[in-house]
Amino acid sequence: DGSAVESLDYEVIENFAYREEQAHRRRKLYVSYLLVVKWFFALLIGIFTGFAAVFINISVENFAGWKYSLTFNIIQKSYVAGFFVYVSINLVLVYTSVYIVTQFSPAAAGSGIPEIKGYLNGVDTHGILLFRTLIGKVFGSIGSVGGGLALGKEGPLVHTGACIASLLGQGGSTKYHLNSRWFNVFKSDRDRRDLVTCGCAAGVAAAFRAPVGGVLFALEEVTSWWRSQLMWRVFFTSAIVAVVVRTAMGWCKSGKCGHFGSGGFIIWDVSDGQEDYSFAELFPMAIIGVIGGLLGALFNQLTLYITTWRRNHLHKKGNRVKIIEACLVSLLTSVISFGLPLLRKCSPCPEPDPTSGIECPRPPGMYGNYVNFYCSKDNEYNDLATIFFNTQDDAIRNLFSAKTINEYSSQSLLTFLVMFYGLAVVTFGTAVPAGQFVPGIMIGSTYGRLVGMFVVKYYRKLNIEEGTYALLGAASFLGGSMRMTVSLCVIMVEITNNLKLLPLIMLVLLISKAVGDAFNDGIYEEQARLRGIPLLESKPKYEMRNMIAKEACGSGRVVSFPRVVKVPDVFSILQSNTHNGFPVIDHTRSGDPLVIGLVLRSHLLVILQSKVDFQHSPLPSDPRSGGRSIRHDSGEFAKPVSSKGICLDDIHLTSEDLEMYIDLAPFLNPSPYIVPEDMSLTKVYNLFRQLGLRHLFVVPRPSRVLGLITRKDLLIED
Amino acid sequence: DGSAVESLDYEVIENFAYREEQAHRRRKLYVSYLLVVKWFFALLIGIFTGFAAVFINISVENFAGWKYSLTFNIIQKSYVAGFFVYVSINLVLVYTSVYIVTQFSPAAAGSGIPEIKGYLNGVDTHGILLFRTLIGKVFGSIGSVGGGLALGKEGPLVHTGACIASLLGQGGSTKYHLNSRWFNVFKSDRDRRDLVTCGCAAGVAAAFRAPVGGVLFALEEVTSWWRSQLMWRVFFTSAIVAVVVRTAMGWCKSGKCGHFGSGGFIIWDVSDGQEDYSFAELFPMAIIGVIGGLLGALFNQLTLYITTWRRNHLHKKGNRVKIIEACLVSLLTSVISFGLPLLRKCSPCPEPDPTSGIECPRPPGMYGNYVNFYCSKDNEYNDLATIFFNTQDDAIRNLFSAKTINEYSSQSLLTFLVMFYGLAVVTFGTAVPAGQFVPGIMIGSTYGRLVGMFVVKYYRKLNIEEGTYALLGAASFLGGSMRMTVSLCVIMVEITNNLKLLPLIMLVLLISKAVGDAFNDGIYEEQARLRGIPLLESKPKYEMRNMIAKEACGSGRVVSFPRVVKVPDVFSILQSNTHNGFPVIDHTRSGDPLVIGLVLRSHLLVILQSKVDFQHSPLPSDPRSGGRSIRHDSGEFAKPVSSKGICLDDIHLTSEDLEMYIDLAPFLNPSPYIVPEDMSLTKVYNLFRQLGLRHLFVVPRPSRVLGLITRKDLLIED
Ligand SMILES: Nc1ncnc2c1ncn2[C@@H]1O[C@H](COP(=O)(O)OP(=O)(O)OP(=O)(O)O)[C@@H](O)[C@H]1O
Ligand SMILES: Nc1ncnc2c1ncn2[C@@H]1O[C@H](COP(=O)(O)OP(=O)(O)OP(=O)(O)O)[C@@H](O)[C@H]1O
Ligand SMILES: [Mg+2]
Ligand SMILES: [Mg+2]
Repeated sequence: DGSAVESLDYEVIENFAYREEQAHRRRKLYVSYLLVVKWFFALLIGIFTGFAAVFINISVENFAGWKYSLTFNIIQKSYVAGFFVYVSINLVLVYTSVYIVTQFSPAAAGSGIPEIKGYLNGVDTHGILLFRTLIGKVFGSIGSVGGGLALGKEGPLVHTGACIASLLGQGGSTKYHLNSRWFNVFKSDRDRRDLVTCGCAAGVAAAFRAPVGGVLFALEEVTSWWRSQLMWRVFFTSAIVAVVVRTAMGWCKSGKCGHFGSGGFIIWDVSDGQEDYSFAELFPMAIIGVIGGLLGALFNQLTLYITTWRRNHLHKKGNRVKIIEACLVSLLTSVISFGLPLLRKCSPCPEPDPTSGIECPRPPGMYGNYVNFYCSKDNEYNDLATIFFNTQDDAIRNLFSAKTINEYSSQSLLTFLVMFYGLAVVTFGTAVPAGQFVPGIMIGSTYGRLVGMFVVKYYRKLNIEEGTYALLGAASFLGGSMRMTVSLCVIMVEITNNLKLLPLIMLVLLISKAVGDAFNDGIYEEQARLRGIPLLESKPKYEMRNMIAKEACGSGRVVSFPRVVKVPDVFSILQSNTHNGFPVIDHTRSGDPLVIGLVLRSHLLVILQSKVDFQHSPLPSDPRSGGRSIRHDSGEFAKPVSSKGICLDDIHLTSEDLEMYIDLAPFLNPSPYIVPEDMSLTKVYNLFRQLGLRHLFVVPRPSRVLGLITRKDLLIED
Repeated sequence: DGSAVESLDYEVIENFAYREEQAHRRRKLYVSYLLVVKWFFALLIGIFTGFAAVFINISVENFAGWKYSLTFNIIQKSYVAGFFVYVSINLVLVYTSVYIVTQFSPAAAGSGIPEIKGYLNGVDTHGILLFRTLIGKVFGSIGSVGGGLALGKEGPLVHTGACIASLLGQGGSTKYHLNSRWFNVFKSDRDRRDLVTCGCAAGVAAAFRAPVGGVLFALEEVTSWWRSQLMWRVFFTSAIVAVVVRTAMGWCKSGKCGHFGSGGFIIWDVSDGQEDYSFAELFPMAIIGVIGGLLGALFNQLTLYITTWRRNHLHKKGNRVKIIEACLVSLLTSVISFGLPLLRKCSPCPEPDPTSGIECPRPPGMYGNYVNFYCSKDNEYNDLATIFFNTQDDAIRNLFSAKTINEYSSQSLLTFLVMFYGLAVVTFGTAVPAGQFVPGIMIGSTYGRLVGMFVVKYYRKLNIEEGTYALLGAASFLGGSMRMTVSLCVIMVEITNNLKLLPLIMLVLLISKAVGDAFNDGIYEEQARLRGIPLLESKPKYEMRNMIAKEACGSGRVVSFPRVVKVPDVFSILQSNTHNGFPVIDHTRSGDPLVIGLVLRSHLLVILQSKVDFQHSPLPSDPRSGGRSIRHDSGEFAKPVSSKGICLDDIHLTSEDLEMYIDLAPFLNPSPYIVPEDMSLTKVYNLFRQLGLRHLFVVPRPSRVLGLITRKDLLIED
C-alpha cells in the first residue's frame, strides 16, 4: 500500500522561475496581500467547518431522536414490533453510510485522523483531501452515528475540517478561476499544510466546542514546523468555529431544529460535580489510570489485529463484502442494545429529590436518567437501558451526571462495559466514517463510575460524586488508547467546563499514557503504520547517536542527471527507478564536477509532457538571454492535492523528441540542504524533521570554509 | 552593552569525549534514568515556583494590608498624620527594594521577561539566572509592589520561575556533589533551555493561576525548538504550580496568613458578568481595541525614550542616583494616590441592592467597592479613592466588578487614567523588579470602563455590564503593548474564569495588536533591543529572499586553526579577535585541505588553562592509542550558567608551554551544520533558527553527492 503514499515537500524550490517572480513582485503590497488572504481563509475555514459540524449534529440528533421516539411509542404496544422498527431504522442508516463510502469515497472510511496526522507530519495519502471524501465523510458519519453504531462523529469532523481547508485553498484556483497571483499563493505544500493545520484545529474545536483544545491538538501533531504567527491564525479559526457553533445552538434553542438541542454537541457540564478531593482519593484515581492504560493498550492491540485480518481476508474481496459486514455489525449492535436491557430486572426509583431536579422515571420522549424500559411497575427504571438504549451522547451525560449516586448497579455497568468494548472493537475498521473519541469516553466512564461506586462505598464520604470518577475514567481510556496528552487534557477540561479537575485529569493521563506506552504505540500511530504512512517521531531513535549520515543513505549508486540531458535518457532513467529526486551534476570550466541542484521527478514529468523546453543543442542555454522564464510559471509545477499527478505512461515522445536535449538548470532547486557524510544521524534527523524536508544530500566533507554565519549576520534591519 | 550578551549553543558537540561516553553507556537504563530525572525536575520546579509565588503574594498582601489599615485608622483622626505614615511606609518599602537590587543583584531590575525571552531565543544575558538574582527578584518585588509603585509582580514571577529552574538544574551539580552522570545530564545549553522553559511557564502559571496560559506563553516564545514531549512536561509543571497555589490559598482561607486571602493572586471572577452580547456592541468593542493599540504603542514608545534617557544620563552615575530616583518616584506615587482623591468630591451611595451583596460605603478595614475617603457624610463614597487609594489588585477587582453600574464618574476615571498612565511610564525603568501586566490591566480597564459607561448610556440596555468592558479594555492594552496573542487570550480567560468571553477578547486583541504593530514592536522586543539582546524573529525578513549565504557572512577572512597548533599561536589568535568559533582545517594524505570541524573559544580556553593536553610533537596524536579520553570528561567543557567563564587574561603560560603543541582533533565538533554558498538567506535563516544554532559554515558547492537521505532512511526500527 506504500504506493498510495507520497512525501510532501516543504522546501521552497528556488528555481529560476521562482526567483524571477520574486524579483518582479512589489514587496510591500504583496506581503500585505498575502496576509489578508491568509486571514480571510482562516475565517472561511472556521465558518465552513462550524457549519459542517452543526449540520452533522442536527442531522444525527434528528435521525436518532426520531428513531428513539418512534420506538418508544411502539413499545408501549408491542416490544416485538418496536424491536423490528428499531433494527430496521438502524440498518437503513448504516447501509446508506457504507454505501456512500464504498461506492463514492473510499478514503472517507475510518476516522481519518491517522491520515491527517500523516499529512501534517509530511506524508500525503492519496485521496484524503478530495471533495468526494468530504461529502462521504459528512453524510457517511450522519448515517453511521445516527444508526447507533459504537463509534463517534468527532474523528471524522477533524478530517472534515482538514478537507474543507484544503479544498478552500485549492478551490480558489481550479473552480473559480481567480487571477494567477492567487494561484501561486496556495500552490505549495507549505501553504497547504498551514491551511490543513487550521482545518484540523477547527475540526477539533467544532467536535468538542473546545477552541483551545483544538489549537493544542493541531500543535501536538505538528510541533516541528510550528510558528507563532500560525498559532494565532489557528486560534482565530478555532474561535470562529466556537462562535458559529454557539450561535447556531442559540438559534436552535427555541426548537427550530427538531430533536436537536438537548444532545448533540458533546459538552457535559460537570460544574455541579465534586469541588474538592482528599488525598486518599488519589489512590483510586491512580487505579483508574492504570486500568485505562491497560484497557487502552488492549484496545489498540485488538483493533490492530482485527483491522489486519479484515484487510487481508475481507476487504480484498470487494465492496459487497464491506457492505454486508457493516450491516451485520449494525444488526449485532441493535440486537445487543435492545435485547440486553430486556433481560435486566428493573429497579425501584430512589426517593425523589427536588433539589437535583431529576425525575424518576424520566418523562416520556425526553432525555435524561432513569429510563423506564420493559419495567412492570410505573415507578421503576431500567439502569442498563439508561445507558445502552440511548444515543451515546445522552448515555455519557447520564454516566457523568452528579447527584445520581447508586443509579447504576455494578452488574449493569460491568455488562455494559464488556459488551460495548466488544462492539467498539468489532465496529472499528468497518467501511464507515468512525471516530474513537465517543466510544472511548463511553468505555472509560463506565469503569470509572464502577471505581467511583466502590470509592463511595469504601470511603463513606458524602461529597464524592460517581460522575467525577466517570469523567476521570473517560480521560484515562482516551489517554491509554490515543496517548495524546496536553490536548486531551485541555479538551476534557473544556468539554466538562470545569477547570478545577485539571490536576486530576492530568494525573490520570500521566499514568494511563505511561502504562499504555509500556505495551504498544497509540492507536493513531498503530493505524498509520498499518496503512503504510511513515510517521517521523519527534525524537530520534537512540541508535542514531552511533550512526552517521553515510550509513543511513543506503549503498546503491546515486542516480543523478547531468545539466543538459538527452530526452530519451531522462525517460529511461525515470523508468529505471522510483526515486522522486535526483541530484544534477555539472562541470566547472576546469572540468571538475559540481553539484548544481536537485530536480524532482514531478518537474521532469511536467517538462517531458509539455515539451516546450526541448532544445536541439546539447549545450547549456543561457537563462538570461532566452525567454526561458515565460515558458512556465511556477503554478504549472505545483503538485495537485492528494492525487498522483502525471504518470510516466501518459508521456508520448515522438522520434523527433528523442533527438532533443533538455537543459535542467532553470528547473532545479539550486540549493538543497546538505550534510557532511560523517554527521551523526541524530543531527541529520533533527535537521530533516525540523525543516520538513523530503531530500537531503549527503556530501563529502568540504575543503574550505568560505565564511561563518552567526546570529549577528542574520539581524538585518529593514 | 553587547559584551554582556552571548549566544547559546544548542548543538550537541559530538567530540571524541562525547562519543566515548555514549558508547560506554548502557542504553536502556540511561534513557529511563534521564526520563525520571527530567520529570522529577519538572515536579521540583513546579513546587518551588508555586511556593515562591505564594511567599511573594502573602508578603505583599500583608505589607499592603497593614499599610492601608494603619492609614485608615489614623485618618479617622488626622489626614495629615495619615498621609505621612502612608508616604513613609511606601518609601521604606521601595527603598528596601531598590537597595537590594542595586547593591546585591543588579540583574533583578525590571521585569526580566525580555531577558528570559532572549534566553529562550538563544541569547544569554550575564547574571540573569544566578542565585542572587533570584533573591533580589523575590525580595525586591515584595518591596516595590508592597510599596505601591505602579508596577506588578507578574513579570518578576516569570523571571523567578526561570531562575529557580536554572538553579535546580545547576544546583544538583555544584552544591550537593551528586554523581558524575548527574553532572552530564544538565550541563548543556540544550537541557538547560528545557528547564528554563518549564520555569518560565511555571512563573506565568503561578502569577495568573493559569496553567494553560503558562504553557502557551512559553510556547509563543520558544516555538522554534518546541517538541511534544517538552510540552507535556511543561504542562505538568504548570499544573503542579496550580495545585500548590490552590492548596496554599485553601490553607490561608481560614485567616492563617494575615491580610492575605482576599486579594493577592489576580483572579477576577467575572462569571457573574455579562452572558451574551448583541452585534451592535461589537463596534464599541472594536473601538476599545483601537484605543488599546494606540495607547499601548504610545506606552512602548514613551518607555523606550525614558529608558534610553535614563541609561544615558542617570544610571551611568552609579547606584546612589538609582536609589534616589526610585525614592522620588515612590514619593510622587504616594502623593498622587493620596492627594488626588482628597480633591475629589464624594458621591452619595446608590440605593442598597441586597441581591448584589455589595455594601456602600464598604465596612472599615475590608476590601471592596465604595470606599469612604475624606467624605463629609457617612453614606457617601469617594470613587477616585476606590481605585486609586487601594492595592492594584483590589482596584482591578473594583473596576471589573459587575452590578456596580454608575459607580464611577467619567471624570474620576479620566483623571485616574491620565495620572496612572503617567506614573506607569515614569516608574518603568527604575531599578526595582517591575512587571507591566498589572499596570497594563489597570490602564486598560479604566478606559474600557469609560467606554462601557458610554455604551450603557447610549444603547440603554440593561444586560450590559461595565465590568465586561473593563476586562476587554485590559486585554486591549496588554495586546497593544505586549503584542502577545494566544497566550494573552488564554491568560485573560483563565484569570476571569469565563470562557464565554473568549471570542470578544480575541477580537479586541486582534485589533489592538494590528494597530500597535503599525507603530512599533512589542514592549519586550523594544526593551530587548535596547539592552542589546539580539532576538531572531520567527519569520525571516523579506529582503533575505534575494540574498545568498555568502553575502551575509561578511567579507573578513575566516580565522581558522590547523589540526595541530602551537600553543602561542592559539593564544595570539584568540587575542586577535572576539570570535567564539573557529573552523579547524586538516590536510588529507594527498595534501588537499579538509575541514574537520569547529572548535569553540571556550573549549580552547579550558585546554589552555588545564594544560594537560599539551604535547611536544607537532604530529597528530592517535586518539585511539593514548588515554586521551580520560583526561577530560565532557562536564569540564560545560559552560557555566550566566557567567563569563574563563577569561584570556586568567591564563598564564610558562616559556616551556610556549614550545608545546595541541592536537585539536579530540575537542572539536566534527560535524557542524553546513550550507552551500549560494543558498538563499531565507533558507539559511530557517535552518539557523529552527535548529537553534550558533555557528554555521558556508562552504563551496559540493563536487559529489554520496547519497540521498529521504524519509525512509530515517525510519529505523528498534
Ligand atoms: N536519486 C537517488 N539516487 C540513489 N538513491 C536514491 C535516490 N533518491 C532516493 N534514493 C534512495 O532510495 C531509497 C528510497 O527512497 P525513495 O526513492 O522512495 O525516495 P523518494 O521517493 O525520492 O522520496 P519519498 O519516497 O520520501 O517521496 C532511500 O534509501 C534513498 O536513500
Ligand atoms: N572564525 C571566524 N572567522 C571569521 N569571521 C568570523 C568567525 N567567527 C565569526 N565570524 C564573523 O564575525 C562576525 C561577528 O561574529 P562573532 O565573532 O560575534 O560570532 P561569535 O562570537 O562566534 O558568535 P556569537 O556572538 O553569536 O556568540 C560575524 O559576521 C561572523 O560572520
Ligand atoms: Mg518514494
Ligand atoms: Mg560574539
